[in-house]
Amino acid sequence: MDKTFVGLVGMGNVGAGVARLLLDHGDRTARHAGRILWIRHVVVRDVLKPRPVELPSGVLTDDLDRLLNDSSVSVVAHLVGGIEPARTIMLRLLESGKDVVTANKALLAEHGPELFDRARELGRSIAFEASVAGGIPIIANISQCLNANRVESLRGILNGTSNYIITRMSEEGTPFSDALAAAQRLGFAEADPAMDLDGTDAAQKLAILGHLAFGSAVHWNQIPRRGIDDVSALDLSFAAQFGYRVKLVAYGQLEGRSLQVRVAPMLVRAGTPLAEVRENYNAISVVGDFVGPVFFHGQGAGPAPTASAVVADMIDTAVGRTRITFQTLRLWSEIESPVVIESAGRLAAKFYLRFNVVEHPTVLADVAGVLNRHGISIATVYQQDLEEDPEAELPLVLMTHRTTLAAVESAAEEITRFEFVRSAVERLQILD
Amino acid sequence: MDKTFVGLVGMGNVGAGVARLLLDHGDRTARHAGRILWIRHVVVRDVLKPRPVELPSGVLTDDLDRLLNDSSVSVVAHLVGGIEPARTIMLRLLESGKDVVTANKALLAEHGPELFDRARELGRSIAFEASVAGGIPIIANISQCLNANRVESLRGILNGTSNYIITRMSEEGTPFSDALAAAQRLGFAEADPAMDLDGTDAAQKLAILGHLAFGSAVHWNQIPRRGIDDVSALDLSFAAQFGYRVKLVAYGQLEGRSLQVRVAPMLVRAGTPLAEVRENYNAISVVGDFVGPVFFHGQGAGPAPTASAVVADMIDTAVGRTRITFQTLRLWSEIESPVVIESAGRLAAKFYLRFNVVEHPTVLADVAGVLNRHGISIATVYQQDLEEDPEAELPLVLMTHRTTLAAVESAAEEITRFEFVRSAVERLQILD
Repeated sequence: MDKTFVGLVGMGNVGAGVARLLLDHGDRTARHAGRILWIRHVVVRDVLKPRPVELPSGVLTDDLDRLLNDSSVSVVAHLVGGIEPARTIMLRLLESGKDVVTANKALLAEHGPELFDRARELGRSIAFEASVAGGIPIIANISQCLNANRVESLRGILNGTSNYIITRMSEEGTPFSDALAAAQRLGFAEADPAMDLDGTDAAQKLAILGHLAFGSAVHWNQIPRRGIDDVSALDLSFAAQFGYRVKLVAYGQLEGRSLQVRVAPMLVRAGTPLAEVRENYNAISVVGDFVGPVFFHGQGAGPAPTASAVVADMIDTAVGRTRITFQTLRLWSEIESPVVIESAGRLAAKFYLRFNVVEHPTVLADVAGVLNRHGISIATVYQQDLEEDPEAELPLVLMTHRTTLAAVESAAEEITRFEFVRSAVERLQILD
Repeated sequence: MDKTFVGLVGMGNVGAGVARLLLDHGDRTARHAGRILWIRHVVVRDVLKPRPVELPSGVLTDDLDRLLNDSSVSVVAHLVGGIEPARTIMLRLLESGKDVVTANKALLAEHGPELFDRARELGRSIAFEASVAGGIPIIANISQCLNANRVESLRGILNGTSNYIITRMSEEGTPFSDALAAAQRLGFAEADPAMDLDGTDAAQKLAILGHLAFGSAVHWNQIPRRGIDDVSALDLSFAAQFGYRVKLVAYGQLEGRSLQVRVAPMLVRAGTPLAEVRENYNAISVVGDFVGPVFFHGQGAGPAPTASAVVADMIDTAVGRTRITFQTLRLWSEIESPVVIESAGRLAAKFYLRFNVVEHPTVLADVAGVLNRHGISIATVYQQDLEEDPEAELPLVLMTHRTTLAAVESAAEEITRFEFVRSAVERLQILD
């Protein structure tokens, strides 16, 4: 049986999963790749730290150069988080002649063009299936399996932490802070979950998927984003009442050459596949002009699903498929993107609006007047029965027909100026 | 821009879709494959028949030899249905040095081992993404993207015609014959839908997917199968009442080295992804030991989705990925399958049983006694209120705890012998 010598840099939970797969299940790579992937070096910062997997003696090292200088190793799983030294390590791996497999989405979202250009210059490849949606092979599906299509729309639930929290809040009325604590206890959320909860993580993943699906070259920090950290239980409950669920959606929609990209909590109609994605699962819905809608659902994180993606990439790289894909796809190298990023205000959609009012005879007439002046037509109004207390604040919910985000923003600004309005105007896009 | 010269054999609706994709959207293959796929020959039986797509002059021919003898053509889309002459044409294409892309599932299910062996002997490849589940790239996902996993379970809704009919019957109470007529009107069902409705089509697809997922080498006609053609509206309605939907499921379940494969109408719990697959959609749920459950949903047939899969395969073949996959996977060539097909009777599952009875004081005691003697424990019993008329036949529904199909078959046989039982015993597997 042929052997391909491989290395690992980083040995956290994902690294341990990869090592276990390669050490205990060599029959799988034998059957699917016609070869054994043989671990020669595992580079870690601290060789004395206890590891959950037993490595053959002589493999563990804190000396990256041992791996770099071993010319028998051709494929390296780069399992280092963050930007530095992850970036430098990847460049050194490429420069020493290794093909790289990575799970580091933040690094690619930040420095993808530099790293891909450098890999191409050096005749090397970077595979990154594990960087988005963990065990769901969405990178291969979009960039290879669906590549006869013009992708027209992409809707992803890409942050498992947010989806877990919003599932608990929606289904059991768990307060945000308790749901977050539960996610942390279960290992779904980082100790510092800020990037999960404010939409950054989903925006980084959308930047990668958007490049593959649409050819867009947008940096993640240019993607308008809002997380779930300020969504109120009240709006989750109204959404349910109207037959929707609130989900943090990474959204890409192409009209002609104009691409809208955004990350935001959105109302998704109950019973549609995306709405039924629960707990810490991820999912992606893609619409191609030939294939129609295709939907993918699975575990978006966790050591074992991520290891599944990393090892699939290592096999692809060892047998030579990755090099072909990398050469032909020319990722992050297009001189000119085939699409232009549309300004956020021109987003065309239906919206959910909710604000609190006190009793006043002209509430509906005044609000309807503002919406009318902005060309917004109302599909549904819901006003809770007014209580006896004339000072009680009661929510007013409106769902609009198709309009633009700019119109909604302007109308919301005017609505908050009415004396009878006692809250900000919550506004959430409704997915068709 | 590099060109790869390609040919098509067959020009029905799928062929027209492929031709349109390649002729009108060359920018896609340029972007994703770094080359143009240039159509040199389209071989049809009748060159005079009107075609829905305009081909460049000189391309259309009824002479297969023109294609076979043109050594500039390296990739051919084989879009001929049925077994013969499809088999002979494929062998001749391989023998003349062409790599083949096919959508013909029946041909592969019947003659896969012969065709794959011959292709390997000749140093050629066969790609067949379009042969199962149309636009859903399930072949690539199972054989490449998830190949680090031991697949433990596979559950597919693989026949769009059956799923359309059962959706209409379940949701609107449409009689079977009307739903079938509607499917035919909408182009979802063949003029002769027998192979769709009796489970043959799903069994052929399961034979292919089972080989990829489990390494099984079972011929489709050895797969126990039942279609939806004799499922009664009564059972659809009881299933719904108990929180399930009936779906035609292609089922593979591995325990140790023992593989259960079967195609049958089964009860799937409402709200789970598989249960919510509606209309003519297909879906596949795969559970791998590392990746966990992954779910794929999309259009399983139709000219455009199938063309999407065919062209993705043509690109993979043109750039050289298919050849690598074909060489490393050794499909249908394993000397020894890693699994053994378990006898149907040993299927371990929960079951739904329904039969009609007339009033009799010992009905429940007698039925419970039989089940008890066969080691079957009852989870739920439902008996409709008995009417005044002591001769009225009323349905008795039982849902069992986990047992074996053999126990259920024996018990059912005994139950039908009671004088108060006035129907056969319907028995449907319940998916966990």
